[in-house]
Amino acid sequence: MENYTARLEKIWDWMTQEGIALVMLEDAEGRRDKNIRWLTGHPGDALLFLSAERKAVLAAWDLNLAKICAGRSPVTIVSYNDFDRQPRKAIVAAAKKLGIPAGSKIEIPPITPYPVFLDYVGELIDFDVLCRERCAAAELMKLRAVKDDYEIAVYRRAAAITNELIDLIEKNVRNGKIKTEADAALMIEVEARRRGCEGTSFGILAAGPERSFAIHAFPGWTCAPFGGPGLSILDFGVKLDSYCTDVTLTFARDINPKQERLINLVEKAAKLALSMTDNGKPAKEIAAAVDAFFAKSKKQMPHGLGHGIGLDEHENPVIRNRSDNEWIIEPRMLFTIEPGLYDTLHGGCRLENDILMTESGAEVLTTARIIHL
Amino acid sequence: MENYTARLEKIWDWMTQEGIALVMLEDAEGRRDKNIRWLTGHPGDALLFLSAERKAVLAAWDLNLAKICAGRSPVTIVSYNDFDRQPRKAIVAAAKKLGIPAGSKIEIPPITPYPVFLDYVGELIDFDVLCRERCAAAELMKLRAVKDDYEIAVYRRAAAITNELIDLIEKNVRNGKIKTEADAALMIEVEARRRGCEGTSFGILAAGPERSFAIHAFPGWTCAPFGGPGLSILDFGVKLDSYCTDVTLTFARDINPKQERLINLVEKAAKLALSMTDNGKPAKEIAAAVDAFFAKSKKQMPHGLGHGIGLDEHENPVIRNRSDNEWIIEPRMLFTIEPGLYDTLHGGCRLENDILMTESGAEVLTTARIIHL
Repeated sequence: MENYTARLEKIWDWMTQEGIALVMLEDAEGRRDKNIRWLTGHPGDALLFLSAERKAVLAAWDLNLAKICAGRSPVTIVSYNDFDRQPRKAIVAAAKKLGIPAGSKIEIPPITPYPVFLDYVGELIDFDVLCRERCAAAELMKLRAVKDDYEIAVYRRAAAITNELIDLIEKNVRNGKIKTEADAALMIEVEARRRGCEGTSFGILAAGPERSFAIHAFPGWTCAPFGGPGLSILDFGVKLDSYCTDVTLTFARDINPKQERLINLVEKAAKLALSMTDNGKPAKEIAAAVDAFFAKSKKQMPHGLGHGIGLDEHENPVIRNRSDNEWIIEPRMLFTIEPGLYDTLHGGCRLENDILMTESGAEVLTTARIIHL
Repeated sequence: MENYTARLEKIWDWMTQEGIALVMLEDAEGRRDKNIRWLTGHPGDALLFLSAERKAVLAAWDLNLAKICAGRSPVTIVSYNDFDRQPRKAIVAAAKKLGIPAGSKIEIPPITPYPVFLDYVGELIDFDVLCRERCAAAELMKLRAVKDDYEIAVYRRAAAITNELIDLIEKNVRNGKIKTEADAALMIEVEARRRGCEGTSFGILAAGPERSFAIHAFPGWTCAPFGGPGLSILDFGVKLDSYCTDVTLTFARDINPKQERLINLVEKAAKLALSMTDNGKPAKEIAAAVDAFFAKSKKQMPHGLGHGIGLDEHENPVIRNRSDNEWIIEPRMLFTIEPGLYDTLHGGCRLENDILMTESGAEVLTTARIIHL
């Protein structure tokens, strides 16, 4: 079971260390922040106020839902309606309720837009308002990159379900029951829930040969054929107890030499990346090696090599070849590796699996693969 | 067909009027902005640079997809990869490519977080960087609140499909083929696409009697029973050519007097709201009247009365009883009206339809209703 108190203690410790009296987290349309889910169990649409005095107040849009979902977390639940549904009114009320002394540091979310930041400063005139990248939300994202025992146990179950679905989809593409993108997507949607999942991690991408050239097919899936001659991509994940898996399969039928070459390069890139993935390794180096490998064949991957997974479909660590990527692989991290190549004429190929780092190295939790039909 | 040039001309006119040399729009994970779709046809993951010299440059994550989707818009398409996938590098390059003179006003998105704003200012040292609520994005959101002929034609087709689905769902709940939330959700997902839709407007909310107490059921749908004794809520929309509809039905079976009362109040509130909806009317007044109507019965609606719809599921006008809501209803606006009441013991009831304003008044495009089983 989630230990919400232990999680809250960590961020309260950080606040003490940083000398911050009050932190506001916001999870609202357009500014989502799963840290509130991680700290309280509440699934979204809420403000969370944390005081250095180790108190927490959750202002929820839906009081009924909050009472059920955040019931195991030591937070005081109030209705967002009490503040005229305005975050600025809520933070002023929270500072008062939690007895924050004038002159204290109050931190607002680092994603607060600049014009809104100015409004907060005007409203909280008696306080020192902080809005910066080094913040509670960033600290929480760092904490969340390293999973605890509960989270790893959830992921083992989620991966097992994901793998069942991979086998099920392969079987039904082979036996002809899945003929269209819609057939594949709907089977996943319903079979994930039959196995106890909340749903899928994101809008499924099921792209038949005509549409697999795009990194993210648009729309995500249609009634077009799937699994016919050429390359078909299926990118999906399940959400179990709010934790996301994320895998991509490629189906290949009657392929030409160019398509075979794409597959071959992607499979080799996946192996190369996995062979380099170890504790203490800079994530950037792994991604750079894959980019270099593709470059040797005059190919370019138009996206990053991978990303952490958790309550968000994309979180830390970042597995990307970018100058500012300073993530180092360590035990209990959970992330995808997903090399892919895309060709407007011949379609695309991506292979994505979920990796759990253990003390003894990388463990591939999922069984996504290239499936030759 | 969309007239992208006409749309771009409007925002270029605004830029000239405001004396802004360069505007950047950003549509990325965590900071979505459908204005890029509206101006170019590109569905997302891109930066758009607009110059006062009436040039437009689209920096897309997926070059292949952009060439297809934005092919009918007069934009120059470049790859975001060329800028190391960093918006700050891209804006510096765009300012150079578009010949923006030093000292000019450059506008970055109003939702730019305060810490990121500081980075932009550091990078664009030779320019006057604007980040404010009165901005191109806000102007575009204002323009988008009033639909053009193309958009109204799309909405008539989208509403017709939505209404077919409403009838189909009612029929299949009545004949027992829809027994669970999953049955309802999956039928909508596939039947929308069979009718040519891109997909659904948002994650379907199908909440049987045990879960209808929440405004937004969490998870959105499960394998739990739907349409059994009590109140079941079904909130869905279809996305046609990227335009969203949004309706909510309530199914009632073997209801008790308390549930009957909820239904009765919600139906009366919907009628009251519709009777007040007219050109020139402040949206706030309509919402305030419904809140007052519920208050007379000692009930409170825990959400706004409605919202504009378009490329986003929630856009302008705002139909909400809040002091800062200054929207006035006018012809060609398209919005929902969705009174709802929720009770932890007896479940919830919501009734949501899509309204098109014409010169002669409100036209209800959709046929959502309370369905007594």
